[in-house]
Amino acid sequence: MSDTLRTRVAIVGAGPAGLVLSQLLADAGIDSVILDSRTREQIETTIRAGILEQGTVELLRALDPGTRVDTVGHRHDGVELRFAGEGHRIDFAALVGRSVWLYPQHEVLIDLLALRLGAGQDIRFETTADHVEGVDTDRPRVVAVDAGGEQLVVDADFVVGADGSRSVVRAAVTGSQTGGYFREYPFAWFGILCEAPPSADELIYSNSENGFALVSQRSPEVQRMYFQCDPEADPDALSEAEIWDTLQSRVPGTTLHEGPIFQRDVLRFRSFVAHELRNGRAALVGDAAHTVPPTGAKGMNLAIADVVLLARALRALLLEGDARLVDGYAAQALDRIWKAQQFSWWMTSMLHLAPQSSDFDRLRQLGELRTVVDSAAGRTYLAEAYTGWPLPTSHGD
Amino acid sequence: MSDTLRTRVAIVGAGPAGLVLSQLLADAGIDSVILDSRTREQIETTIRAGILEQGTVELLRALDPGTRVDTVGHRHDGVELRFAGEGHRIDFAALVGRSVWLYPQHEVLIDLLALRLGAGQDIRFETTADHVEGVDTDRPRVVAVDAGGEQLVVDADFVVGADGSRSVVRAAVTGSQTGGYFREYPFAWFGILCEAPPSADELIYSNSENGFALVSQRSPEVQRMYFQCDPEADPDALSEAEIWDTLQSRVPGTTLHEGPIFQRDVLRFRSFVAHELRNGRAALVGDAAHTVPPTGAKGMNLAIADVVLLARALRALLLEGDARLVDGYAAQALDRIWKAQQFSWWMTSMLHLAPQSSDFDRLRQLGELRTVVDSAAGRTYLAEAYTGWPLPTSHGD
Repeated sequence: MSDTLRTRVAIVGAGPAGLVLSQLLADAGIDSVILDSRTREQIETTIRAGILEQGTVELLRALDPGTRVDTVGHRHDGVELRFAGEGHRIDFAALVGRSVWLYPQHEVLIDLLALRLGAGQDIRFETTADHVEGVDTDRPRVVAVDAGGEQLVVDADFVVGADGSRSVVRAAVTGSQTGGYFREYPFAWFGILCEAPPSADELIYSNSENGFALVSQRSPEVQRMYFQCDPEADPDALSEAEIWDTLQSRVPGTTLHEGPIFQRDVLRFRSFVAHELRNGRAALVGDAAHTVPPTGAKGMNLAIADVVLLARALRALLLEGDARLVDGYAAQALDRIWKAQQFSWWMTSMLHLAPQSSDFDRLRQLGELRTVVDSAAGRTYLAEAYTGWPLPTSHGD
Repeated sequence: MSDTLRTRVAIVGAGPAGLVLSQLLADAGIDSVILDSRTREQIETTIRAGILEQGTVELLRALDPGTRVDTVGHRHDGVELRFAGEGHRIDFAALVGRSVWLYPQHEVLIDLLALRLGAGQDIRFETTADHVEGVDTDRPRVVAVDAGGEQLVVDADFVVGADGSRSVVRAAVTGSQTGGYFREYPFAWFGILCEAPPSADELIYSNSENGFALVSQRSPEVQRMYFQCDPEADPDALSEAEIWDTLQSRVPGTTLHEGPIFQRDVLRFRSFVAHELRNGRAALVGDAAHTVPPTGAKGMNLAIADVVLLARALRALLLEGDARLVDGYAAQALDRIWKAQQFSWWMTSMLHLAPQSSDFDRLRQLGELRTVVDSAAGRTYLAEAYTGWPLPTSHGD
């Protein structure tokens, strides 16, 4: 049995990129269908990144009158860089007049799913894309398998891969499922969720002799913290006491509020950019196009930036028959993507202790941190990137 | 046969650091003797670095009414960063209100030797320090061999090692001649001097697919240029035509003025900071204390900054019996030294093509260059470091 749907844009992936894209297209009168292999509940409960750039927040507010980013989320006007036992605040608001919001990705997804389903968006949960055909024609197709095991073919004018780092659409764009530029890192993050009051009002990025730690928050009752670990670390191998000892040793000069740890995970670090972002009538956005290590908090924000560019390009293509913006999509998106890769690499390498680093490397790293915090220009350079370069506007550059 | 001299400060090395130190001490009424293994002519004709920070120039003007930095030297209000075939000016004057001066080190030395010898400074040329004794006493000594092969002992209150990267004094300070933090680089610079008109008004730092090049100047008739090469390269292995082909290929988008090449050399890259900068009554300054790769143009400037700190400390020690500044010399000097190491490493790694770099590394590097030049804060951060952080003042911090 095979069912066939007809839509203008077939979007694979109901993450932030796919959902925002469907809204931007709907606002322009372009209909779309979204496929996702997960259930709605799975999408709404997976813990992911939690920092939104100012431009991302402004876009969510503009798209979604019901967004809870200002009620459930928290505005942060700065972060602390901690090294050599001292904290140094990077005051985003004072330096660049911008802020970031602590608002976990699954909350963003709860908002966006309610918005899109409320507007009648066709979202096919538990429907797994298998492959994409015909990207060199004007009628590309996504071939998928639905919840009942039946084949579903989505016939479209354009296919978008918003299907994450294990993207199925990528093969149709790059010619292979893994074709891209890679960088591996010799460490990972051990992340925990715990029941405890916040240990700080803002994020603390801490460089210590024992390695990196990030003190983050979720709510007044729940905190999120990370520490640098071996990529092969077993999240269940450490006792809670050992986890707290490790965390405390990584933020010398502060005392963390401890509490029961109810979730733990190891986040692998990887940098990736696909060799191609567009091929004929298919394009990649978000993690399907690129992965950044989490240190710069760029992942979800970069996905949204891709989508803003691609939505504009699809409007021109599908409403006016003008392919120039689609043809320029990759080059334009890559400018921001490589800046974000650079920023994520920079924050990672400046803050972490690489296993093979020499004493020279370590002291140079402290020299770099000191140069940045001692200079208003250095702090501004960091703040600009962290709070996010301006998003492209709807109708121009 | 052995001769013994008595002075307050024994300075080993008649380079910029040693000569400026002797002037600063003389201004405070503290006499010194300088030893150098070279002849005056050798010192005045060795081609070395050529960029002076604004603070260095201001100090030279204040110390030496006869300095030719404003007549023979050239003020540069910016540099060009070139990558992906395009030039981007970093406008120092507009960004930080500071400039640098192109004024080769041997010209600085001609000025300073004339100044100090004219003032009656005791400088022993062709006198080679062998070792330093008694740094744990109030009467340290330099044991040397003079031009005639006779032993010369310089009895002093304090010994300063301004004797370059192969410092003899270093062993008395660190306990070993090589004790320090090191970093090697997998490339070197092939440098030439040629008879040709300038190819640009300011320095061009060029990142290209073929590797780094630096287009510099010496005078209206003589130019200095460099290109990244293998550290084992033989300076005589290339024809002049091959050198020009290489240089031209490294600055795509510009055309260099060619001319006869009359000097060529290979400059090894190394980062080094001595483990100790001071031990009892002996201290290290300049290349004896640290080496930086040449990309950041920091070598001579960092030596001068060391000397300003040390002169202030020696005045307090020798005129007022107050050892606190000498005790704090290393920590205070190291703050700037590690910032300069960081800056030199950063400029080096951002601009050169490392032999093992991946396509990801290469594209990230271009992302970094673009982030810097697209941001006023990024350009300012670079300009602050290049033109030099403020020098300590004579009497306080």
